[in-house]
Amino acid sequence: MSFNHVAVIGLGLLGGSIGLAVRDEMAGVTTSGYDADPQVRARAAERKLTDTVHDDPVEAVRGADLVILCVPVGAMEEAARSIAPGLSDDCVISDVGSSKRSITNALRRALPNHSVIPAHPVAGTEHSGPDAGFSTLFHQRWCIVTPPADADPEKVAELVDFWEHLGAMVETMDADHHDRVLAVTSHIPHLIAYTIVGTAGDMEEVTRSEVIKYSAGGFRDFTRIAASDPTMWRDVFLNNKDAVLEMLDQFLTDLALMREAIRAGDGEMMHDTFARTRAIRRSIVALGQDDPRPDFGRADHE
Amino acid sequence: MSFNHVAVIGLGLLGGSIGLAVRDEMAGVTTSGYDADPQVRARAAERKLTDTVHDDPVEAVRGADLVILCVPVGAMEEAARSIAPGLSDDCVISDVGSSKRSITNALRRALPNHSVIPAHPVAGTEHSGPDAGFSTLFHQRWCIVTPPADADPEKVAELVDFWEHLGAMVETMDADHHDRVLAVTSHIPHLIAYTIVGTAGDMEEVTRSEVIKYSAGGFRDFTRIAASDPTMWRDVFLNNKDAVLEMLDQFLTDLALMREAIRAGDGEMMHDTFARTRAIRRSIVALGQDDPRPDFGRADHE
Repeated sequence: MSFNHVAVIGLGLLGGSIGLAVRDEMAGVTTSGYDADPQVRARAAERKLTDTVHDDPVEAVRGADLVILCVPVGAMEEAARSIAPGLSDDCVISDVGSSKRSITNALRRALPNHSVIPAHPVAGTEHSGPDAGFSTLFHQRWCIVTPPADADPEKVAELVDFWEHLGAMVETMDADHHDRVLAVTSHIPHLIAYTIVGTAGDMEEVTRSEVIKYSAGGFRDFTRIAASDPTMWRDVFLNNKDAVLEMLDQFLTDLALMREAIRAGDGEMMHDTFARTRAIRRSIVALGQDDPRPDFGRADHE
Repeated sequence: MSFNHVAVIGLGLLGGSIGLAVRDEMAGVTTSGYDADPQVRARAAERKLTDTVHDDPVEAVRGADLVILCVPVGAMEEAARSIAPGLSDDCVISDVGSSKRSITNALRRALPNHSVIPAHPVAGTEHSGPDAGFSTLFHQRWCIVTPPADADPEKVAELVDFWEHLGAMVETMDADHHDRVLAVTSHIPHLIAYTIVGTAGDMEEVTRSEVIKYSAGGFRDFTRIAASDPTMWRDVFLNNKDAVLEMLDQFLTDLALMREAIRAGDGEMMHDTFARTRAIRRSIVALGQDDPRPDFGRADHE
């Protein structure tokens, strides 16, 4: 490992998991942490999410050779500015945010003289905050590194190595392409889930109590990602607007076709669509990206 | 238990689970089964899904005091006609289908002289076929019984008692109301999941391989229910058209509002919506309708 001291700014699910994973997987590497919320700092210190937890972001990054910003996308630029006075010259600045173009621009604006190499581990749960992290969060998950064109290849390689040590598989790609890929695989699914859970909660003909009771028919699956952190997700949609709107319109076109098939009673069109989607599920399970057990391995029938 | 002999027509996930559950939870009750597919019958006999497996539906129901039709909604009427010659006069006819109005009408047309009491256990997994069933499928799940207005209250009580013996909690309601409730809690979620998985699989800008690799960002959740049985789901949409279209239009209205919020950069509207949906998740978990562990208890980080 090229990094000896990793500073984590933001000690929620992702930041906390990084701290715990470094402790478990990288003997000898020091970690330090900061969170803007004093209660989060207190809990982070209790759980020892990082070796030290600081009340001042400048102190948290002092001596670090890698700083990872784990704050909502909209808070990245301010967080980057707040640590500037403590950064050593050759420190690598990275992050875990879900929209890479806007973050790349924000971090380079805030820290024009540092190596900014954004990254995005495609991992998480619906839980957030300093109690949510765990050290194996990145195992078998992809981490996408999006180096700017002028990034130092050696430092990029070091960051890739870092994520591989945490158990992740790493790909590099352009920030804009990342934003389109994640619009499909993450942002639109969250948007749809938030929306349908909202719709179901506001029905006149069906009570909220009925929605909750009979949720095992499929609805409950959507409620999990719709329980994700609201601030984080607001910022994602504010910062990946173009790709999200483009993918959303493709979905809306397909949904309109499906609506018409239902209206017209076109069973053949429906069956064709429904039969094709199984193959994608099988590939995801085969690639170790989902639990092969029925119903995600839920234990609630026992 | 008032029933001594339960016949199951259709030996897939639901039918097989009923057979296994009766064996495990109702000592002394006989089961017999039939499936239109000879390969399913052979596998059902190997797994002993029912005490006996018959090559003729008429033989399968002979002597039964409860027959449960576990075939796709669109196959209900034909299945009911096929068993008519073997039915005893006082036999109760029920089913497990997901749209109750159309099934009620179909079964009463096919068997006008029998007690038809439709039911719908809100339970399942994404797997189907004779290997998918397990005896605890109905534990902690609701079963909705939709007795026609002229149903014999004693027989309704017997059917409720039957489902409670299988571990289910039972509610009775009108078939039309059932169809609206399930449109929200089950049919629309499946429609959305099938559609988004189809959309994601057909993107030009993002490859299918990328969709699969980075699916842990949220997309993979949708692929589970989109792997459900295509024939079953085609029939649901063909047979619950009005309620599905009504609920779909409410969802589309809400999604259009969300689209506009993203376009306009209205973070407040997004945050308000995203913050409200957590409460529904909490209620579902509190009611024992989902696994309380993060990520549905998936074991794929280890």
